[in-house]
Formats: sequence, structure tokens, C-alpha cells
Amino acid sequence: MRKLLLVSSALLVAAAPQEKPKTPSEIVAQAPAGAWRDIPADDLLVIELRTGRVVIQLAPIFAPVHVANIRALAQGGWWSGSAIYRVQDNYVVQWGNNESDKPLPKGVVAKPPAEYHRSLKGLGVTPLGYPDDYAPRAGFASGWPVGYDPKAGTANLAHCYGYVGVGRDLSPDTGTGGELYAVIGHAPRHLDRNIAVVGRVIEGIERLSALPRGTEALGFYKDESQNVPIASVLLASEIPAQSRPEFQVMETASTTFASYLRARANRKDDFFIRPAGGVDLCNVQVPVRRKPAS
Amino acid sequence: MRKLLLVSSALLVAAAPQEKPKTPSEIVAQAPAGAWRDIPADDLLVIELRTGRVVIQLAPIFAPVHVANIRALAQGGWWSGSAIYRVQDNYVVQWGNNESDKPLPKGVVAKPPAEYHRSLKGLGVTPLGYPDDYAPRAGFASGWPVGYDPKAGTANLAHCYGYVGVGRDLSPDTGTGGELYAVIGHAPRHLDRNIAVVGRVIEGIERLSALPRGTEALGFYKDESQNVPIASVLLASEIPAQSRPEFQVMETASTTFASYLRARANRKDDFFIRPAGGVDLCNVQVPVRRKPAS
Repeated sequence: MRKLLLVSSALLVAAAPQEKPKTPSEIVAQAPAGAWRDIPADDLLVIELRTGRVVIQLAPIFAPVHVANIRALAQGGWWSGSAIYRVQDNYVVQWGNNESDKPLPKGVVAKPPAEYHRSLKGLGVTPLGYPDDYAPRAGFASGWPVGYDPKAGTANLAHCYGYVGVGRDLSPDTGTGGELYAVIGHAPRHLDRNIAVVGRVIEGIERLSALPRGTEALGFYKDESQNVPIASVLLASEIPAQSRPEFQVMETASTTFASYLRARANRKDDFFIRPAGGVDLCNVQVPVRRKPAS
Repeated sequence: MRKLLLVSSALLVAAAPQEKPKTPSEIVAQAPAGAWRDIPADDLLVIELRTGRVVIQLAPIFAPVHVANIRALAQGGWWSGSAIYRVQDNYVVQWGNNESDKPLPKGVVAKPPAEYHRSLKGLGVTPLGYPDDYAPRAGFASGWPVGYDPKAGTANLAHCYGYVGVGRDLSPDTGTGGELYAVIGHAPRHLDRNIAVVGRVIEGIERLSALPRGTEALGFYKDESQNVPIASVLLASEIPAQSRPEFQVMETASTTFASYLRARANRKDDFFIRPAGGVDLCNVQVPVRRKPAS
């Protein structure tokens, strides 16, 4: 009658005696309303697959031109008839209108600037507090994980699990935003500052990560019959209010997030014998939730 | 006619002009025979699913009692009729005879010691050369990624993508090795030194990572009809020589591996504009290959 668990405390919201330190998920479950911030409907991209919805939160503060493109592509119906055509294990799922000359909707910038990093100014970064292998410093800004360089005064959105970037050809091409990918493996942080990261999957990642892997080089599907059709891609703001999904993200400058970060780095759940005393940037998933009914 | 690539240099073995630095995959492809070491047939666990094979390389130098258990469980046919019963997104796939009282074969130690780390002595670690968030130092020993503590004189196998650990209950239970899991997401390094890591998947990880996610808490399948049956689990040494899979691992103390590590940390393929100048332990996948026909 053994049920060996390999406990993931992400879901362990057990009633713990008072003297025990809270688990990360307890901290999230008990977070006050003020620790959450609504995500604007214009920042939510809703992809409908046959298997259900994938919702992406866009990051206009990091890649404004690419995000504006993505909004215009969604509003212009550019992704209708598009598909997922690449699934590479421990790397990415990629979709769009690959190898098509489909004209871009009005307002889409054909050659956006290289929005691979931005100015650190005005970001208000909460430091991770532990070393990073890909940037002089790592931390969180406005709900996003970032690498940053205080000397150069720059910051970049990090390639963590579920994060979404813009497929591109060799430089100076930066991609329009029409071909997007989501990370489905160990964070490929070497892509940081080499690609425009435009957001993250906040619901339905399993509809991407559990897809059959492509057998061609780089995980491309062998023929188009294997492609996974995309039924529609809409901004949440285009969806009627009653069926529009609403989400909130934890304010990373809040004391609640500081407690959460501390707990992620020092796991003291019953399962853990030796807390790590550290954590890497991508293992501190910024909490996101469905907006509670008011 | 755009084919936006988001190039993974893992597969880019293009013929590059001489003056260009080699990509990681070029270094692997051109590695001399002496940089490779045969993996003993007793260290290969071959799992047959309906969809094909999953091959695991066992790590007896890190968890000798658990690995001896796993060999005895395989040889005793303990996993016949077993199944994959848990798939948690961005975390693990787990299999065995969950919640069963199936008697253990002879020779299996019911309560193994906590082989969560071992002595650093005799390991001969090649340092990663970049900071680690989960151990005072990180590096590679005998083909394995390790965290280590020169002061305490200990080293542990790291929970990287594809790595296999022993499911257990709350401490002091350490698991027999009958319930195993493989990592299918961002490296959950906080599990390091809290669980016995016993090896890594070296072929067929996509047969685990692309499985449907379980919808119950912790990714357990809702009912047994969703379980993925395991046809057989054998040591390669139990398989007739003509159909026995043979693998080699790159010697991590070799100069070839040193070049590979350097190239992983400083990507200079045509796609990259800004090499990271660093890399985390789990992003330096130790090269493994099918043994070439002699």
C-alpha cells in the first residue's frame, strides 16, 4: 500500500501546524488581494487548438514593437489556417505560417528592431539574490524574470519554461512575431539577448508540451499532415466579456513575493531534508492565477 | 518563403569554414574515438513501451545500493505488469507498481541507505567553471553532472532534464528503486541531495515527455485505464548480444569535453549575436551516442 510520491510542493497545500514555515504554494494560496495585479486583456493572446485553449501573457514592456505586431496579426486574422509545425524535445514548440508568403496585416512592422534587451531604467528590479550564469545579475521586474547588467544599464526577459519568443532567421532578421515558439524543456538561457522574448504561456502549456515530437532535424514535423492546426488566435480584448479569460499576476515587488522567493530557495516542506539555500531564476515561477470572482 | 528557424545548434552540423569556431555539435561529431567510453551492459536499463524503447544509463558510482536493487528488480521481472501512472508537466514522469504490495525479488534491499550524495574522494571532478545555485561548486565526474562541496568533501548527481530518481515517501523512507521518475521539465535541482538519483534517459525520452499529463494532484492519472503499460524492463546484459543496444558516453575529463563545454558557454554559431559567456550545469548535456559499428 505504498504510494511513493516524490512530492511536488507546488500542489501541497496541506494544513501545516503553525510553527512550520509556509511552503511556496501556501504562500501563494494565502496571498492578500493587494499582492495581485490584473493582466490587461490586450496582453492576453488566446490560442484555440482542437484540444483546448493556450493562453499567453504578452510582455509589451520588453518587446513593444513585436508585441504590437502580435496584436495586429491576431486582430488581422493572420494566424487563421496556421499550425504548430515544430516540436523539439527539451527545447521548443513552434507555430505560425511557416514558409508561407501570406501578406502581413496593416500596421505590422515587417522588420522590427532587435528588442532583445531594454534599458534597466524604470524597471525596478527585485534581485533574485543568487548568482546567474547568463547575466551579471538576475531578478524580477513587473512580474517577469530578468537578467540584467547594472553597468551596461540593460535588462532582458529570460528564456524560462513556457516562455514565448519570436522565431527568426539569421541576423539582422528579427522575425515579425508571426512565427512564435514556447520553451518546453530546460531553460535555454543561451538564447537570452539573441531573440525577442514576448511573453509566457500562463494556461494550457500541456497542450503544447505533450505534443508528438517532430522527427526531422530541429524537431520539424516530417510532413504537413502532422501539423497541429490552430483554430483561432485572438486577443482576450476581442473576446466577449462573458467568456473572456481574466488573469492576475503576483506583484514581484510585493513582500508576499519576497516570502515566496525565500521559500522557493529554502524548501522546508516535510519532504525536504536539505533545503538548497539557493534557487535559479527559472525555478522561481512567477505566480499567475485566474482572477477570482468578485 | 521564410522558414524561421530558431536554430538549435544541437543539430547544426553544417560544414563551417575553417576560421569559424566549432559549434558544440561539430565538436561532438568530430570527437576522436579516445574521447568516448563504452557504457557497460549492466548499466543499461531497457524499458519497452508500446511506442518503443526507453534506455536508461544507471549511475552505480552515485547510488550503488539503489542501482543494485534496480538490477535485481529488472532481473526478477518485478516491473512486468507495471505502468507509468504519473505525468506532471514541467516536472516528472513516474512509473512502477504504485500502491501495490508486490513482493520484492530476492536480493532487493527493502530499506536502502540515503544515497543522496557520496564522497568527493576519487571522483576527479572537471569544474563547470561557472557559479551554481544549488551547490558550492558544479562540474562533471565520470560522465555525470554533479554539485559538490569541497569543504564537506561530498558530491551529488544533479537533477537535470531526463535524469532518473527514486520515488520515495517522507524521510526516512528512501524508496527501493521500484518506483522511478524521469525529469521532463526545467531541472528541479532543489531535489538534489534529497532523493537518490540513479541515472539518466539516454534514448527515447520523447516516449515519456510527450505523454498526456495527469489531471489529478501531482500529475497522477485519474484512473488506471489512463496508465501507460510497461511491456518489459531488462538490463541490456539480459538481451541477446545481436539485439542489445550499445552506447558510449563522452569522457568528461577529456580535452574534447573541455572544448565542448567552452563552446556551450560561448555560442558563436551564425545564429548567435551575443554569446552568454556562461552556462548552467544542466545546459551542458553530457554527449552520449550509439556505439559505432567497429
